Amino acid sequence: LGNNSFREMCDREKDTNVRLSLPAVCVVWQTAMIILFGVFIRYDHESDAHWVEHRKHLNLTDIENDFYFRYPSFQDVHVMIFVGFGFLMTFLKRYSFGGVGFNFLIAAFGIQWALLMQGWFHSLDYTDGKIKIGIENLINADFCVAGCLIAYGALLGKVSPVQLMVLTLFGITLFAVEEFIILSLIHARDAGGSMVIHTFGAYYGLSISWMLYRPNLHQSSRLQGSVYHSDVFAMIGTLFLWMFWPSFNSAICDHGDGQHRAAINTYLCLASTVLTTVAISSLFQKHGKLDMVHIQNSTLAGGVAAGTAAEFMLMPYGCLIVGFCCGVISTLGYIFLTPFMEKRLKIQDTCGIHNLHAMPGVIGGIVGAVTAASASVEVYGHEGLVNTFDFEGKFKDMVPTTQGGHQAAGLCVALCFGIGGGIIVGAILRLPIWGDPADDDCFDDETYWEVPEEEEEVSSSFICLGFVLFSYQTNDAVIAFCCSRLYCIQSPLDGSTAQFWDYSHILM
Amino acid sequence: LGNNSFREMCDREKDTNVRLSLPAVCVVWQTAMIILFGVFIRYDHESDAHWVEHRKHLNLTDIENDFYFRYPSFQDVHVMIFVGFGFLMTFLKRYSFGGVGFNFLIAAFGIQWALLMQGWFHSLDYTDGKIKIGIENLINADFCVAGCLIAYGALLGKVSPVQLMVLTLFGITLFAVEEFIILSLIHARDAGGSMVIHTFGAYYGLSISWMLYRPNLHQSSRLQGSVYHSDVFAMIGTLFLWMFWPSFNSAICDHGDGQHRAAINTYLCLASTVLTTVAISSLFQKHGKLDMVHIQNSTLAGGVAAGTAAEFMLMPYGCLIVGFCCGVISTLGYIFLTPFMEKRLKIQDTCGIHNLHAMPGVIGGIVGAVTAASASVEVYGHEGLVNTFDFEGKFKDMVPTTQGGHQAAGLCVALCFGIGGGIIVGAILRLPIWGDPADDDCFDDETYWEVPEEEEEVSSSFICLGFVLFSYQTNDAVIAFCCSRLYCIQSPLDGSTAQFWDYSHILM
Amino acid sequence: LGNNSFREMCDREKDTNVRLSLPAVCVVWQTAMIILFGVFIRYDHESDAHWVEHRKHLNLTDIENDFYFRYPSFQDVHVMIFVGFGFLMTFLKRYSFGGVGFNFLIAAFGIQWALLMQGWFHSLDYTDGKIKIGIENLINADFCVAGCLIAYGALLGKVSPVQLMVLTLFGITLFAVEEFIILSLIHARDAGGSMVIHTFGAYYGLSISWMLYRPNLHQSSRLQGSVYHSDVFAMIGTLFLWMFWPSFNSAICDHGDGQHRAAINTYLCLASTVLTTVAISSLFQKHGKLDMVHIQNSTLAGGVAAGTAAEFMLMPYGCLIVGFCCGVISTLGYIFLTPFMEKRLKIQDTCGIHNLHAMPGVIGGIVGAVTAASASVEVYGHEGLVNTFDFEGKFKDMVPTTQGGHQAAGLCVALCFGIGGGIIVGAILRLPIWGDPADDDCFDDETYWEVPEEEEEVSSSFICLGFVLFSYQTNDAVIAFCCSRLYCIQSPLDGSTAQFWDYSHILM
Repeated sequence: LGNNSFREMCDREKDTNVRLSLPAVCVVWQTAMIILFGVFIRYDHESDAHWVEHRKHLNLTDIENDFYFRYPSFQDVHVMIFVGFGFLMTFLKRYSFGGVGFNFLIAAFGIQWALLMQGWFHSLDYTDGKIKIGIENLINADFCVAGCLIAYGALLGKVSPVQLMVLTLFGITLFAVEEFIILSLIHARDAGGSMVIHTFGAYYGLSISWMLYRPNLHQSSRLQGSVYHSDVFAMIGTLFLWMFWPSFNSAICDHGDGQHRAAINTYLCLASTVLTTVAISSLFQKHGKLDMVHIQNSTLAGGVAAGTAAEFMLMPYGCLIVGFCCGVISTLGYIFLTPFMEKRLKIQDTCGIHNLHAMPGVIGGIVGAVTAASASVEVYGHEGLVNTFDFEGKFKDMVPTTQGGHQAAGLCVALCFGIGGGIIVGAILRLPIWGDPADDDCFDDETYWEVPEEEEEVSSSFICLGFVLFSYQTNDAVIAFCCSRLYCIQSPLDGSTAQFWDYSHILM
Repeated sequence: LGNNSFREMCDREKDTNVRLSLPAVCVVWQTAMIILFGVFIRYDHESDAHWVEHRKHLNLTDIENDFYFRYPSFQDVHVMIFVGFGFLMTFLKRYSFGGVGFNFLIAAFGIQWALLMQGWFHSLDYTDGKIKIGIENLINADFCVAGCLIAYGALLGKVSPVQLMVLTLFGITLFAVEEFIILSLIHARDAGGSMVIHTFGAYYGLSISWMLYRPNLHQSSRLQGSVYHSDVFAMIGTLFLWMFWPSFNSAICDHGDGQHRAAINTYLCLASTVLTTVAISSLFQKHGKLDMVHIQNSTLAGGVAAGTAAEFMLMPYGCLIVGFCCGVISTLGYIFLTPFMEKRLKIQDTCGIHNLHAMPGVIGGIVGAVTAASASVEVYGHEGLVNTFDFEGKFKDMVPTTQGGHQAAGLCVALCFGIGGGIIVGAILRLPIWGDPADDDCFDDETYWEVPEEEEEVSSSFICLGFVLFSYQTNDAVIAFCCSRLYCIQSPLDGSTAQFWDYSHILM
Repeated sequence: LGNNSFREMCDREKDTNVRLSLPAVCVVWQTAMIILFGVFIRYDHESDAHWVEHRKHLNLTDIENDFYFRYPSFQDVHVMIFVGFGFLMTFLKRYSFGGVGFNFLIAAFGIQWALLMQGWFHSLDYTDGKIKIGIENLINADFCVAGCLIAYGALLGKVSPVQLMVLTLFGITLFAVEEFIILSLIHARDAGGSMVIHTFGAYYGLSISWMLYRPNLHQSSRLQGSVYHSDVFAMIGTLFLWMFWPSFNSAICDHGDGQHRAAINTYLCLASTVLTTVAISSLFQKHGKLDMVHIQNSTLAGGVAAGTAAEFMLMPYGCLIVGFCCGVISTLGYIFLTPFMEKRLKIQDTCGIHNLHAMPGVIGGIVGAVTAASASVEVYGHEGLVNTFDFEGKFKDMVPTTQGGHQAAGLCVALCFGIGGGIIVGAILRLPIWGDPADDDCFDDETYWEVPEEEEEVSSSFICLGFVLFSYQTNDAVIAFCCSRLYCIQSPLDGSTAQFWDYSHILM
């Protein structure tokens, strides 16, 4: 190492101490949430104590409270957000704490901010200026957060928790605006969020990653892989995402057939994806061995792509076809596109969200547009068509082909918001004030977490005694040869009783 | 190692390269699924867009869509299939990828094939020749797959993914036929599938394992145990199976009291099993220490045995008695029967499915027969009796005692299909074309997976000795060149006998 | 080591062999359960086969069976009890089996005993002297068990399974009495059990821990920490508790708005807690690094504190405030109070339940009292007020302010029962007959479990000795060549007998 390079290294030294910034951000923003909630947020008529009167007035029974239509789906979505995304990101050998822990932090902040942002756009009661929330708002808040967690996937291991909080603040804001434009202004349908969640979230994250490009990331390449058990942990995330995706795509669909059909469609899409993922993974690997990265990620692509069209009459075989294609494309993406993007496009995508969310999200948007455009009264029935596509109010004269166009427009908006927003937020995150790690500290929990010492150094030390003629020291033991006798003491570091062995008879 | 043994080793060498066969099977079969789904499968009236008209016609509310009766249970069953069975099979120290990964693959294929097979038998709409699917079909598909996953338990670590796909294809087919005979022709009731799922699946797997007997399996004995953390992973599987078993047994019961009672019965059965499992495990172990294998498996036996009678008036104390017996029998099975079966009957049962599924399944069938035979109008009420046992249509003159006989007949059919089918499929799987592993490659993920290199030296350390003239150190081995001879000792850390190789002949 | 101290050491030796006591307790108590269930427990009218007649009589549809209101919440609670509490207690490096396994055992016993105890107090049908159970009873049994599992948290690693069974037997009994006094006699409301579950359970456990104080617990200090992967396992517990806490607090609330509001309130409380936990954890740590102990535990404090007031009109901003405070107080408790309690008050609290359950539970009780006292007809509506606070029957003249007083009284009862009961049960558990571990065997699964030998060098180190002419060191072994002979000693770190190999013949 020359003098210059050494100095350079010192200059480069980054300060990852977030002892002031992280608590400050958390406390101040949480306080802001309390104030804004106090001003704006109230229970809606189904969660308010007046429900009992309201219910009688409308001649409903308790079971027709929206809670019973949506709560099981909500809990499944909740599991996907916290366990699904969280554990999917534990695959790195020394970044499991950061994966699951920061996911937890930003999701917990994000849902609060999302309740406000989405509330202003969708649930504002103009009579009293309050946002009225119920179970559907909680689901939508979880959805909104999903976009930011997807973005986190591209940046995993390379950013500080403070950067993640900033990413989430802006991400939720952009999401709410984008969602309002796509769903309310353009009147595109997107029950499972292929466009508004996955396409937006993925391009948002990829653009930020592009802005934060680290040319010397190879310095932490020793930590960029998985170990055996971290891969098993990641499978917990994969499976909970996979299993509960039908709930994700059906959670905010219309009561009755809408939710029912969305669950079936997603279930079939995902089943099909698993087989083609396995096929491609095996085909492109030496000896046909499967790669855990593909199994952990590409198997989920079908769920992403089923998002927009989940409640449409996609037909069971249509779902299988979508899943088939997504498994192939997503796995090929991991094999060929991710390395290409890192080398040529300077986009470092830790979890491969381009393959899991971006491409399948765009496919999902296209599938949605095509399915909508080809909808017919024969297939849906007249009432079914109106119901499924919400051809009511000022959109009551809309026809399926126009709807298809609107769907395509929605996809473009999602792309623009993702890329544009990501570039702006990426520029903000490049400021040298956020405590992000140096290149050789990436993917290392030591930077932001108290990591327990491993058992090796902990357990005990061996000390040998006597007139030591020769001794040899291993990692955690000393052995010694003493005159014509040999003793060994295992003397635990914690000060508890030592143990003796007399090995002298061996020397006879 | 002499010349002969070396040649023998070469002969024995099996080709585990599945680079062509696995992708081919996955892609071709998935394509077949798409075509068959296109021809046969449509939405049923509750998941079709016409529901909104249908509902008005029948004067129903949206909440009375079957989706809301069954979706929470469906999701629990889904978790059992993918996380429950998957993680239960991660207990081996180096086969966690195969356990959870292949479980994922065959379940994803199986549910598609099951929708078709079960659809042809149970949900075919004769007016248009289409299978109409809804949420209940998805649950039944998951159930159907469970039979194959049970069978996988006996073969864990000893078969290739291609063999598993074949096992699943035939298993689902046999299952659908067997189920049709038992439920529709014989008119036995089996809500939780003690007979159709567990008894069939277990004997199917055991028969295959018998056909695929490996006399030299001890060659991979170093990998047949667990490590500390793999046992904790397996507990994830155990607990999700245990917790959600009430959903499993109640998922397709009658609306109302049927589902309600099935959940209670299963809950009680399982609680009781835990205590007797702990008792027997402690009683037969040195110093009364508990064995994780028993806790992971036998605690579930009560759920299996509660399957058939779950919706009957088994009474709470009856459930506790069934659970009590199952915990005892299943744990004793692990202690005495599994070693006996391996030695004397040449049945190698990796997960001990004979103790967890076969015996409790048969007990469940018997309990079901007895409970049905002793049903009375006093206990059930007249309508309740008709409702619970479905004494309608051409079975409207049936009485409980006859029903008990039919239940027993159903159990026999399940046994026959399991054993007979297993022998036939086992014979097919013995063909030398499926890429199954050699005896000393069993229970090793290296065979079919890209396994990350460990930081630690997990498996063992290699020690070489002698007058070292030259040495080379790999990640976990040292080889040395000693005078004119070269020796290597693999000295396993677990204290078992060290192994020696003389590599001197290489130097000649 | 002097003669005396050696003798002392021998005297101290405890017998942890539970080979007779554990099976005896399990079998006898389970048999007692069967008898008592036979005498007392029957299905209620919603789970009985007569439901079909009952339903027609009341003009209900099947979906109005309580099963469909509560089953999804029940399953979430079930997951919290078995996976949530179980995995939260896997954080210790060598006590994961005991954490998840004993949790499983005592919960399985506890739910049976709780069905009886709570049944006698709340569900006894005086016409026939039977307890009639349905889904709500199962939820309540799970709740009841939660109190004992909280107590186990304080004692984790320091007690035998037999002691835990005794703790559970008395804990459930005390719980049922305390609950009856608080809910039925005092007429306090406590939907999520801040008082009856958390306050009671925590002080019960802390008092027992105080009675069982071990002055020499430092002898097992080497095992009191976590390792990397055990911390990730514990996050599974944390997240499932966190995600499903809204179900816990809403599970037995009133149908309709009660359940709906309780879920929203808890969701918001928990979100807010995460941010302040992170803030305080970072603020008090060197370099602002986060401590996993805080993230695993304090993030849940908001759910505890939201328990009592969950179904009240706490208002969304009120929830955030409660969560804010709990995150701060609970994390500060881990940093300052737990060490203080161990040193000064002689209370050894392994999991820090004082910070996670005791303090937040008391806060929850106070929040409940204040919220109840300030309830008004404007906010609740008249019917809503009656409905929420159950001002019916002999309490129909009650007003919110009085209710506030009753709530406070309920909190006092919970405290008294917890502390008093804990001291008594602690005295019983000090008897030298329960097979509890010696001080240096605490936190070690070896005591009560068959633990697989580890592949890593955890289990043993290799030591070679002699007149070393040459030696070679691998990562975890030393081999040596001694004169014309070569010996190797594998000297296991756990202190068991060393093993010798003579490799001299290789050199011939």
